[in-house]
Amino acid sequence: MNIKVKWLRNQLMSLKLDGMIVSNPVNVKYLTGLEEEGILIIAPKENIFITDSRYIESVNRKLTIDDEIIAYDTKKMTKYDYEGIFMICENIGFEERYITYEQYQNYLQTYQVNLVETEGLIENQRIVKEEQEIACIQKACEITDSAFEYIIKHIRKGMTEKEIAFEIEKFMLLNGADKLAFETIVASGTNSSMPHAVPTNRRIITGDIIQFDMGCQYKGYASDLSRVVFVEDMADEYEAVYDFVLEQQEKIQKALKDGSNIKSVIKNREADYQLKNFPIMHAFGHGVGLDIHELPFLKSNQDCTLRENSVIAIEPGVYFPGSFGIRIEDTYQVTKNGCINLTKCVKDKTIIHLLEERA
Amino acid sequence: MNIKVKWLRNQLMSLKLDGMIVSNPVNVKYLTGLEEEGILIIAPKENIFITDSRYIESVNRKLTIDDEIIAYDTKKMTKYDYEGIFMICENIGFEERYITYEQYQNYLQTYQVNLVETEGLIENQRIVKEEQEIACIQKACEITDSAFEYIIKHIRKGMTEKEIAFEIEKFMLLNGADKLAFETIVASGTNSSMPHAVPTNRRIITGDIIQFDMGCQYKGYASDLSRVVFVEDMADEYEAVYDFVLEQQEKIQKALKDGSNIKSVIKNREADYQLKNFPIMHAFGHGVGLDIHELPFLKSNQDCTLRENSVIAIEPGVYFPGSFGIRIEDTYQVTKNGCINLTKCVKDKTIIHLLEERA
Repeated sequence: MNIKVKWLRNQLMSLKLDGMIVSNPVNVKYLTGLEEEGILIIAPKENIFITDSRYIESVNRKLTIDDEIIAYDTKKMTKYDYEGIFMICENIGFEERYITYEQYQNYLQTYQVNLVETEGLIENQRIVKEEQEIACIQKACEITDSAFEYIIKHIRKGMTEKEIAFEIEKFMLLNGADKLAFETIVASGTNSSMPHAVPTNRRIITGDIIQFDMGCQYKGYASDLSRVVFVEDMADEYEAVYDFVLEQQEKIQKALKDGSNIKSVIKNREADYQLKNFPIMHAFGHGVGLDIHELPFLKSNQDCTLRENSVIAIEPGVYFPGSFGIRIEDTYQVTKNGCINLTKCVKDKTIIHLLEERA
Repeated sequence: MNIKVKWLRNQLMSLKLDGMIVSNPVNVKYLTGLEEEGILIIAPKENIFITDSRYIESVNRKLTIDDEIIAYDTKKMTKYDYEGIFMICENIGFEERYITYEQYQNYLQTYQVNLVETEGLIENQRIVKEEQEIACIQKACEITDSAFEYIIKHIRKGMTEKEIAFEIEKFMLLNGADKLAFETIVASGTNSSMPHAVPTNRRIITGDIIQFDMGCQYKGYASDLSRVVFVEDMADEYEAVYDFVLEQQEKIQKALKDGSNIKSVIKNREADYQLKNFPIMHAFGHGVGLDIHELPFLKSNQDCTLRENSVIAIEPGVYFPGSFGIRIEDTYQVTKNGCINLTKCVKDKTIIHLLEERA
């Protein structure tokens, strides 16, 4: 049997659950490799993937005998087929964070069992990565690094944020990325003060600050990178903030390793922000894997211990609404002794020069 | 007050609800224009958008006094602020199809009210489009048409499905699209037999059938277009199937107008499929708007009446697993007298010729 499904079966046994309905598509991919729409059902006698006719062929192409997963077409299943899945079962786990209230009611009707919350059982298992998972993230990081190094040498006079974002995405997709990990952020001038700015038609001008936030997926695994550059010149006001943000990132990196308590590390950084009277606009970081934002979150309310082979993005930022913002972010592998940076592109204050407009 | 929020307030009154929590981001955009993360709360005395510090600035830039919507930063709100929102209220509507079971439990705790299912109240309102909504869809359709006309003249020998998909997406994004409406499908040869194929590294060869399914967003509104072309030559086996699919689309188009019953129209088409022994792998179509798939769905279980100024995609398809598939899809505006095709690119059987490889 598929080794991850086997792991899940053991977990369910120790939780005294007779089975589980896995609805989160990322968890389905983690367990089975399948990206097709559907739900994975761990039943006493078999593992079932219920999909529909649009996907049944590609699902059957991907599953091997060793997976021990049977694919069913939902349209060919009757009420009695559904009720038979958990026959004589009592308690079945479900993912309360991924099914809607309406689906919950439907599951109750369909499966006629007692549904038990599983509280991120699979998400917690995903925190510690295997070697080949880290290799995929590393590859995604390399592609992202290259895209950044490329773009800062190829911004032409008159280019808009949107055009720059598009060039970044094109570079990643043509250089090995399967997909984008999220929509690329290119925020220039005062737009940089919004942590989640969407690229606009604003044209880059001399003196601008440009905030980049970019990442791609390789075999399903994400990278996450943020950088700030200055166009032709760097105003004095940016310097101290840049140094502060970079220092915060370094302090977090140095404090985090296998066994670190996230809460205490982040509490210290929040104290630095409070001393400067800088508002804290978002978490200091997050896990990266099949999801771009996953466990663990680097927040002061997370009283949990970091573990070896977690992969995390550390991304302190400082924002002055209506004025500007600076965020620096890298993706790291957590080890016994510290954090290894998987995104390696230049992090010194960088002044870029615009190319001439195309004829 | 924002006219759509006013409409919603009237609906709630007639449903005897004291307020509503709008969680579906597409519904929030429909009502307010906001695309930032957050929830819209219709409370007895005010309209509130609860977001967080990442978005508060851009939300405040977008909202006008006329909207009569106040933006709050969730982090600055206490337990008592939340409980105060629906003070003295009894029944509050919620979107049971968009919040998770966990969120439902949180809402109960947070707002201390009785939550009542609203059964797609806003989604149903979105079915009939206003003039400027149709204009946006029309623009998205024009961009998509142009991308198709462009790509079939620019496929080079040796190109892969992925590369072709990327060129289509690039064309749309550089020619006015804000975003893609979904990930472009380019499925060649036997891959075409999977309705939801993902582009692969398979290279196009002479004799191939290529299935395209593509669309973009303009100001949030989507387009949806599917076409099939043949490379250098068309095998006989394709001809009859192509004719059948095109005929099905024409029959549906002719049968649909303001007042048509969807169920009876689609039942007739299903009878044609059964006569030929063709499997029905997906719905015959769907509404198109802020969501790429929205109400109404063209399925024989939809016993509902089509209305003027709905926008629908009609997309019959026939698939032979492991062999090939053909789907033809256009986006239409429903009128009093029929359906107006908003996607206008060539629909005759098209044989394309490959360009030479780049030096």
